[in-house]
Amino acid sequence: MRLRLRPRDDSYYEMFADSANNLVTGARLLAELISEDADREAVGERMRACEHAGDERTHAIMRRLNSKTATPFDREDIYRLASSLDDVMDSMDAAVDLIGLYRLERLPKGIIAQVEVLERAAEITAEAMPRLRTMDDLARYWIEINQLENQADQIYRRLLAHLFSGEYDALTVMKLKDVVEELETAADAFEHVANTVESIVVKKS
Amino acid sequence: MRLRLRPRDDSYYEMFADSANNLVTGARLLAELISEDADREAVGERMRACEHAGDERTHAIMRRLNSKTATPFDREDIYRLASSLDDVMDSMDAAVDLIGLYRLERLPKGIIAQVEVLERAAEITAEAMPRLRTMDDLARYWIEINQLENQADQIYRRLLAHLFSGEYDALTVMKLKDVVEELETAADAFEHVANTVESIVVKKS
Amino acid sequence: MRLRLRPRDDSYYEMFADSANNLVTGARLLAELISEDADREAVGERMRACEHAGDERTHAIMRRLNSKTATPFDREDIYRLASSLDDVMDSMDAAVDLIGLYRLERLPKGIIAQVEVLERAAEITAEAMPRLRTMDDLARYWIEINQLENQADQIYRRLLAHLFSGEYDALTVMKLKDVVEELETAADAFEHVANTVESIVVKKS
Repeated sequence: MRLRLRPRDDSYYEMFADSANNLVTGARLLAELISEDADREAVGERMRACEHAGDERTHAIMRRLNSKTATPFDREDIYRLASSLDDVMDSMDAAVDLIGLYRLERLPKGIIAQVEVLERAAEITAEAMPRLRTMDDLARYWIEINQLENQADQIYRRLLAHLFSGEYDALTVMKLKDVVEELETAADAFEHVANTVESIVVKKS
Repeated sequence: MRLRLRPRDDSYYEMFADSANNLVTGARLLAELISEDADREAVGERMRACEHAGDERTHAIMRRLNSKTATPFDREDIYRLASSLDDVMDSMDAAVDLIGLYRLERLPKGIIAQVEVLERAAEITAEAMPRLRTMDDLARYWIEINQLENQADQIYRRLLAHLFSGEYDALTVMKLKDVVEELETAADAFEHVANTVESIVVKKS
Repeated sequence: MRLRLRPRDDSYYEMFADSANNLVTGARLLAELISEDADREAVGERMRACEHAGDERTHAIMRRLNSKTATPFDREDIYRLASSLDDVMDSMDAAVDLIGLYRLERLPKGIIAQVEVLERAAEITAEAMPRLRTMDDLARYWIEINQLENQADQIYRRLLAHLFSGEYDALTVMKLKDVVEELETAADAFEHVANTVESIVVKKS
């Protein structure tokens, strides 16, 4: 038996997978909240709990990173990956929060499509994270995320045009625009996650 | 007498303390500006001078960092700390600027509470910076900053709800929202400062 | 003949120059688009192509950076430089996109001045990039960029005041503000490019 003197810290893979699984939960709560007959207050509560759970996961990664034990890839990349996963959750949580705060009863249909893209992005991100260990088959993941981000952009632009179509008064446009922008920011953050994964893989190859 | 061949550059502590003390001045000017009978033009002038002084402090830190002399902690952390301190000042200065530019005579009461949180955050940040030398008693600081940031969030959300309560026309909402968002960004930047301090301390322990 | 064992990778200079030259093209397209009798659809198409070309250049730099071959300056600085050049293009492209999306027929005159500053900034940035090889005469460049950014700030603030002057309804203000803010973000990104160049030069001196 050979001893490895500086074992790489494999638990990072589990921590990232955990963090991404939490995004799946968050995206589903978002989908639930915007559905017709949602109990918005209850779903809002669960979203807040989900966001706190995400924060704890992020802090755990950062603490381990600061402990200066060996890391399986560049510290800067671990930092970026953890931060971007956290950014996704923050934006989804902020969108839920604004919907409640602004008492937005009716939401434009386009938001459903926006959230569906986020759900799919969360799922394939959660599936990809454990594959960081073997670096296997990750290109498929970041290519699909890039496609999803392009789709999200299209939906977002159509939503903006719709908001200014004359159907809504100025104050309602401002409120809806805030929500729609948070969701677009979440889609962007999923792309940052994928960019970091690509960068990690390319460095190792 | 023992010679230390690579003396750490202690002046960083003074530079950070200096930068944070400047934020105390800035936060107090902000409080003065939003008080009932302020000479807004005069206070605006002093704020601009304060922001320039802050810029010079930031550049001095960056210059020293670029000089490649030894640093008391990770270069990346020094960079982040200096940048976040600068971000706080930029947001406070932008808020003052917008109040003047938009000729906002009446401000909602909630803004006073927002600024009070910034004043307190500036004070405890300025007190904490010199303790970076000994790393003493810093947890107390970042815990209070996190509490202040939560408070700031609450106040910000209440202000948003108030802005859309029907009391203001759409153009006024847009103007006030810009100001309120800059102040919220300043509170977030104080938290970034504290996160960086926490990360520095954890690495050294 | 002396062999250099780890030759620095000189092609970075060409890649940055290439990326900055693409910004000159983008800024000129922006100027064309806002001119009186522009064929906005055709110019919009060319802007999209220009943005894609920029993306490819950025990816090429990032790929080389990830390949772990020797770099002529700090990896982090190369990363920052490439990212900021990309940010400029993204903001100029977003501005063009919004003008089309919002069907903004009439634009305020101030936008012409804003775009002129961007054109000049793009030109001197493109001129400066090849000088990174010799580090020659770069202070002149970053000083002018800082002046241009101050000018851009002034123009931006005057535009904001103009938008809220009462001439426009709230929805139009929201649309124009989005465009004007993207252009201001582009000017800021040019300053980030210059700051990174300054930091590279200072480290080498």
